[in-house]
Amino acid sequence: MDTKKIGQHISRQFNDEMEEIRNKVLTMGGFVEQQIDLAAQSFINCDQELAEKVIQQDDMVNHLEMDIDHECTEILAKRQPAAFDLRMLIATIKAITDLERIGDEAARIAKMTIRLENTEYYHEQYHEIQHLLEMVKDMLNGALDAFARLSLDEVASITCQDQKVDREYTSIVRQLITRMMEDPRHITRTLDILWTARALERIGDHACNICEHVIYMVKGEDVRHISQDELEKVVSR
Amino acid sequence: MDTKKIGQHISRQFNDEMEEIRNKVLTMGGFVEQQIDLAAQSFINCDQELAEKVIQQDDMVNHLEMDIDHECTEILAKRQPAAFDLRMLIATIKAITDLERIGDEAARIAKMTIRLENTEYYHEQYHEIQHLLEMVKDMLNGALDAFARLSLDEVASITCQDQKVDREYTSIVRQLITRMMEDPRHITRTLDILWTARALERIGDHACNICEHVIYMVKGEDVRHISQDELEKVVSR
Repeated sequence: MDTKKIGQHISRQFNDEMEEIRNKVLTMGGFVEQQIDLAAQSFINCDQELAEKVIQQDDMVNHLEMDIDHECTEILAKRQPAAFDLRMLIATIKAITDLERIGDEAARIAKMTIRLENTEYYHEQYHEIQHLLEMVKDMLNGALDAFARLSLDEVASITCQDQKVDREYTSIVRQLITRMMEDPRHITRTLDILWTARALERIGDHACNICEHVIYMVKGEDVRHISQDELEKVVSR
Repeated sequence: MDTKKIGQHISRQFNDEMEEIRNKVLTMGGFVEQQIDLAAQSFINCDQELAEKVIQQDDMVNHLEMDIDHECTEILAKRQPAAFDLRMLIATIKAITDLERIGDEAARIAKMTIRLENTEYYHEQYHEIQHLLEMVKDMLNGALDAFARLSLDEVASITCQDQKVDREYTSIVRQLITRMMEDPRHITRTLDILWTARALERIGDHACNICEHVIYMVKGEDVRHISQDELEKVVSR
């Protein structure tokens, strides 16, 4: 094999490795999306069996994170990538931390289902939880799609959606506090709903973080801690 | 300058850069420690002025993170480090994310101080908050010390301390729920104490994460998601 062929071979191998990492991130992302859904459904329907499944499966999320993390570090050491490839690896290492934390939030919701004592207590607030769930699921789905397609088309609308999630969350908290005051006997249960809303709100934050990592990958700019307006400017230029 | 001298020069420059990053992380860490302290004091003493200061200063934490992150990426691109140096840069990028999140938790506590309506309402639970604060401050201090000295002497006791923090937190939550049931008029205020306890518990988690990053740096092993026993084995071998 001559030098040129070896070069091509190495370069193809490198591309394959990068592609494999991207695919693994998307697999992890899809799995985490499913975890959120199952966790929220277990909570809403008081389905303890489903909750157990979510908690068990969290291990898989953790392993995926460690696996991808390890591969990224290997490539950094072996290939010493630059420019876009380097940014992609750094962004991936950060994105999987966010995905793992989302997995933790899902497990947290499932743990609340497990400790439900009074399964017959039905709460109107579930309707709001369901709505919040749909909002953050959309956000995460959009963020993963941006990662997959390296596209910034939707990222500004996702970070904007996060502001709506925050408002919705604040409104749920306010309603739940009123409810606790009116009916102190169910404070424990109402607090669980509050923690669930909180977990979902945090998932929205992580989806935004993933969007920021994608922007960094594509544009090479660090857009953390800037306003929505500034972010939109970076994305559109 | 001959090749050897150029080599030495580059190597010295590289060491200087790595040293600078370590120093910046420790500066950021010290600053974040101070933020936690000020935030908790502002909450306990209903000191709104102090709380405002903490919130304003959170920007500084964010900027330190972005600055160190940028430097790490620059070195990765320019120097293509391997082995310990590569691990140190990866671990640093992750550790500063944890420090930034700790800063966020401090700002969160300060924001609760700001929205205090009833400053005259004094709560016995502050005593427990103070205790939790001391515990997590110790943990963070130990984690930063491990990072500074690249020493694993204390990391196992820090991760072990986290289990005590979790128990303490659970006990505070239980007490606060009882209090809310007994005195529903002060639910909002009691919830703020609960959120503060939660923020402190999260800070403990981040301190543990930093310990895990230090272990990765020193031993090259990923110790996330393993038991305390396994972690102690890795540290001692």
